[in-house]
Amino acid sequence: MIEVLFQHKSIRKYKPDNISDEILNRILLAGTRASTTGNMQVYSILVNREKKLKEQLWASHFKQNMVLEAPVLMTFCADFNRFNKWCEYRKASPGYDNFLSFFTAAIDALLVAQNVALAAENEGLGICYLGTTTYNAQQIIEQLKLPRFVVPVTAITIGYPDENPPLTDRLPLEGVIHYETYKDYTKEDIDRIYAEKESLQQTLDLLKINKTETLAQIFTDKRYTKKDNIAFSKTLLNVLEKQGFMNNG
Amino acid sequence: MIEVLFQHKSIRKYKPDNISDEILNRILLAGTRASTTGNMQVYSILVNREKKLKEQLWASHFKQNMVLEAPVLMTFCADFNRFNKWCEYRKASPGYDNFLSFFTAAIDALLVAQNVALAAENEGLGICYLGTTTYNAQQIIEQLKLPRFVVPVTAITIGYPDENPPLTDRLPLEGVIHYETYKDYTKEDIDRIYAEKESLQQTLDLLKINKTETLAQIFTDKRYTKKDNIAFSKTLLNVLEKQGFMNNG
Repeated sequence: MIEVLFQHKSIRKYKPDNISDEILNRILLAGTRASTTGNMQVYSILVNREKKLKEQLWASHFKQNMVLEAPVLMTFCADFNRFNKWCEYRKASPGYDNFLSFFTAAIDALLVAQNVALAAENEGLGICYLGTTTYNAQQIIEQLKLPRFVVPVTAITIGYPDENPPLTDRLPLEGVIHYETYKDYTKEDIDRIYAEKESLQQTLDLLKINKTETLAQIFTDKRYTKKDNIAFSKTLLNVLEKQGFMNNG
Repeated sequence: MIEVLFQHKSIRKYKPDNISDEILNRILLAGTRASTTGNMQVYSILVNREKKLKEQLWASHFKQNMVLEAPVLMTFCADFNRFNKWCEYRKASPGYDNFLSFFTAAIDALLVAQNVALAAENEGLGICYLGTTTYNAQQIIEQLKLPRFVVPVTAITIGYPDENPPLTDRLPLEGVIHYETYKDYTKEDIDRIYAEKESLQQTLDLLKINKTETLAQIFTDKRYTKKDNIAFSKTLLNVLEKQGFMNNG
């Protein structure tokens, strides 16, 4: 299994082949084996295969073509709706309409998502995470008809790969691991940790295309800008409020 | 690898044996292969092995003995500190002091955590997630000396298992999966989905010990109460503010 972890790469081009129900069920079952808080399983997985709804979701995911091309799109949601209903039918008063409960459920959903992703890759399928899920959570809630206490936190496209990209770079281990306590980064540390990433041919090409001096500027000025982040922060906090998770006493 | 996913169980009793540096590094490297948003890797992993600090962290984790017994405790943090420093040293202005950025970084940290957990299990190690990480995030920040823009989101104990508990129950697949759109649950659905869980001998024992009528009441009245959830919601939102992630424009 360690090979599956080490061979992971995001797949953005898919063959049109469908995923059999047998494989789909096995992947989903593997997802449900993940640890969840108190074994409450406060998540849901939405599985989309039909064209009509996938076209709507494609728009929510910034029209990334892989959403249309992949035979399956899965959306992982923090979900206290089912648990709350269970409580209510069992003479119990749920107190899960707050931020901690949302975050607890989001953790559940994300650990399940990674299990599903790895189980899919183990079957020879390729996956790609969609960060756009939180950006357009409100639209996705409407498209998937998610009730109160259900919030989408991530999504993946799944299908048979029609590309074989190289492994992407990673920071060296020392860049992300701290033993005992956090050792903050000096300029020399930052230079050393980012040296490999900054010297990749791919990085040099990006600088040319984007006409920027540094790679960091591509992130701050083009890909993940303050303006977008603030707009999406407001949307996401509004979604949490609207879905019932911001009654913090 | 599918076996590792399907055999997962939380391990709360550990042998005193240490984990070799070789194995530890392999597990951590497997963690770094997880997808992260824009390959930014906005997470950090704190690795604790020394007794003194583990005793402090044990207190933060509600004095659960596995924190002391396991040879390794890992804390997974949403971390924009390193990325922000990189931006600043590269003439770029980071705009990652907001809620969306925190949540993005939390997703990164959680996918990495699940990779590490599975890689550890693949080595014959056992793990247990600690939900207490978010409850006492402020204490943990002080103990691990986490700077601004770093927030702990989950933690796991890791070590060689000294117990072999049975697999825990899960809701049937139909309880957590929705095809195309969300189908809300009727009383009959809830009865069917929770039937197996509610009829387990373990559940009947819990009802006796706790002197409650239903299993749901054990969750709402004892394990995850509204009062605690509201207190922890406030703490967690304060932590996000204090660590610099609530400048939402």
